[in-house]
Amino acid sequence: MNKVVECVPNFSEGKNKLIINQIYKSAKSVKSVKVFELEYNKDHNRMLFTIVGEPEAVLSSVFSAIKKATELIDMNKHLGEHPRIGATDVVPFVPVSGIIMEECVALSNKLAKKVAEELKIPVFMYEASAKRQDYRNLADIRVGQFEGFKEKLKTPDYGPNKIHPTAGAIVIGARKYLIAFNVNLDTKDINIAKEIAKKIREKDGGLKAVRALGFEVDGMAQISMNLVDFEKTNFDVAYNAVKMEAEKLGVKIKNSEIYGMIPLESLVQAIKTTFKADNFTEDQILEKKLYE
Amino acid sequence: MNKVVECVPNFSEGKNKLIINQIYKSAKSVKSVKVFELEYNKDHNRMLFTIVGEPEAVLSSVFSAIKKATELIDMNKHLGEHPRIGATDVVPFVPVSGIIMEECVALSNKLAKKVAEELKIPVFMYEASAKRQDYRNLADIRVGQFEGFKEKLKTPDYGPNKIHPTAGAIVIGARKYLIAFNVNLDTKDINIAKEIAKKIREKDGGLKAVRALGFEVDGMAQISMNLVDFEKTNFDVAYNAVKMEAEKLGVKIKNSEIYGMIPLESLVQAIKTTFKADNFTEDQILEKKLYE
Repeated sequence: MNKVVECVPNFSEGKNKLIINQIYKSAKSVKSVKVFELEYNKDHNRMLFTIVGEPEAVLSSVFSAIKKATELIDMNKHLGEHPRIGATDVVPFVPVSGIIMEECVALSNKLAKKVAEELKIPVFMYEASAKRQDYRNLADIRVGQFEGFKEKLKTPDYGPNKIHPTAGAIVIGARKYLIAFNVNLDTKDINIAKEIAKKIREKDGGLKAVRALGFEVDGMAQISMNLVDFEKTNFDVAYNAVKMEAEKLGVKIKNSEIYGMIPLESLVQAIKTTFKADNFTEDQILEKKLYE
Repeated sequence: MNKVVECVPNFSEGKNKLIINQIYKSAKSVKSVKVFELEYNKDHNRMLFTIVGEPEAVLSSVFSAIKKATELIDMNKHLGEHPRIGATDVVPFVPVSGIIMEECVALSNKLAKKVAEELKIPVFMYEASAKRQDYRNLADIRVGQFEGFKEKLKTPDYGPNKIHPTAGAIVIGARKYLIAFNVNLDTKDINIAKEIAKKIREKDGGLKAVRALGFEVDGMAQISMNLVDFEKTNFDVAYNAVKMEAEKLGVKIKNSEIYGMIPLESLVQAIKTTFKADNFTEDQILEKKLYE
């Protein structure tokens, strides 16, 4: 492939397997892309998967999934722990190889126009595609969530000035690779998770390019992180920061979870830092040689 | 490829680039294999590289390199810090995919016969190919080294009962993937490196499947390890053991070095252990998906 782009759409359904599968199958209807790593979580009531391929094919694939989610998900009935504004909640394009951020921004705008015109859903552009500084951060756009948007919609970048009655609104954009990384604590006390999340997230003066929230998942307190630029803060650094804060509060880490896909480079960087393996490179990985 | 085997021949030349390149080129003369990761070290006065491909092609490639090393290296003039018995010192075959250990053992015996008959070099079979228990470990075979073997040769498994006048003897066999892993200390005191090596190696009651020696390399004390079964002891465990022993002696780790190639599975295991990422798998690595 010449230009490779990745797209990781998030949808507000994590319980009903029939709906989950139908959305996933719609993305797969475009044969020239790879669609994989379907993940869903019933507490978050949310699903996501990864599409990888050439830009136009990825656009067709994700549009097909958005259309299906618009048909099948009614946000008026949606309950879940994770913040969300729509049936299709957020659609990021990520440059993988042979493609620069600006091309991903152009691709995100093309999708946004199509969603606005054909599905009548208001679209907010975020991250590298943001048209306004106050829409740059996903968390800022989502304030008020679906319920709040029903009352009063913020001004969208594309589409109607009114929320879609069942599908809500959508955030679309282009960004760097995002690593979803959760750390589970050896306690049920969600307040401890919230306190640690606050200590380590960038918004409150913590680690660069780290978003973090405290949840209770499966009876455990969890710090759920999005590492939005692993070249600035990789998962090993985030893990050690959580560990240090947890120790101060007399709590231990139970385990951690890399959620979804991760670029090889992030693993290599974590190995280099943790074991001071200064000269280690991706090219030393045997499997990589076999595919060259 | 149907059956994939790896071969990592080690030769006793780490200084003369003309000789190093000629041996490397000989291995590359077989077009259907991949030959890569040429590494050489002037202190060890030793080189190694990796051949990967189908069994018969790998055999032809490595035989060609052994033949060239036999022509070009005179062990009577060889000085280096690393133990060695011949121009081609050791030739392990390693199963990679679609092939079991027993097939690698058969392949190693085929190469051994050819080396003995055509090059008149005595061959010792080691590891999974060992025909005697006391030849199983490479270190045990190498006791006495080239100089000792000139005086009195141990009984070889193939070939003449007399050392080759310039090329010495060869160890050939089949084994699991070996990770060469060095840890450099923040001291010049080689005795500290030797003491730590003794503490952590299996031979002296330390970690399973770990061979370790203390060296001085580039003015630093180094613990040079061979991790002969990373499913038993992976590099992260070895690193932490060295760190603990070094701390007891008031010494810090300067850095570490993964030498040559490493299987992806070893990195994944290190990530899982270090960050308690219990459910993490190779299949979450983005680049792997692209090559499927």
